[in-house]
Amino acid sequence: MADDGSAESGYFRHHVFCCVNERSEGNSRGCCKRKGGEDLRNYMKSQAKRMGLAGVRINSAGCLDRCELGPTLVVYPEGIWYRAETTADVDEILTAHLRDGKPVERLMLGKEKQ
Amino acid sequence: MADDGSAESGYFRHHVFCCVNERSEGNSRGCCKRKGGEDLRNYMKSQAKRMGLAGVRINSAGCLDRCELGPTLVVYPEGIWYRAETTADVDEILTAHLRDGKPVERLMLGKEKQ
Repeated sequence: MADDGSAESGYFRHHVFCCVNERSEGNSRGCCKRKGGEDLRNYMKSQAKRMGLAGVRINSAGCLDRCELGPTLVVYPEGIWYRAETTADVDEILTAHLRDGKPVERLMLGKEKQ
Repeated sequence: MADDGSAESGYFRHHVFCCVNERSEGNSRGCCKRKGGEDLRNYMKSQAKRMGLAGVRINSAGCLDRCELGPTLVVYPEGIWYRAETTADVDEILTAHLRDGKPVERLMLGKEKQ
């Protein structure tokens, strides 16, 4: 890998950002936190550690602007977006995508807002 | 662009994550928040909006694990990491990298922890 801070020398093989943003209860868009996003992120972080996934970082993030579709997360550098609603969904992303390199099509978000 | 949620159909042209993590005052690693990370992120978000940068999202993030080098941010999908200490640094990243597509070498992080 290159040595210049570019994508080729990226610190992480997969860098995951899980939305944990909270909106007020009546907000029409909803929010990932009220849909369980923070708990799912904590679960994902602990499972990734338990699995010993090298080069994988599970971060929390502010609003990813896909509130209606949450709980959302995005995996970079691939730029693959997911809705992960359950711990089983999270397990599948961890195992298939982050461990085995095979993105999980059934959980991917499309281009709804583009 | 593709229509499958992959990198080619990514929601954002540049997705920026600014660490706003806070550690306790005595922590030996320091933390981005105590180095101004949150204020700089808020400045970057408002400037990006003012500049009308299409396809650019400025997010806050939890600990990016480069605490000693902060305030840190990373731009995906390029995977380019920066230390931005001042509003002038932020302006340069916004203008050169996110508007004009020319990453700012003088602010890039290397592979210190790899």
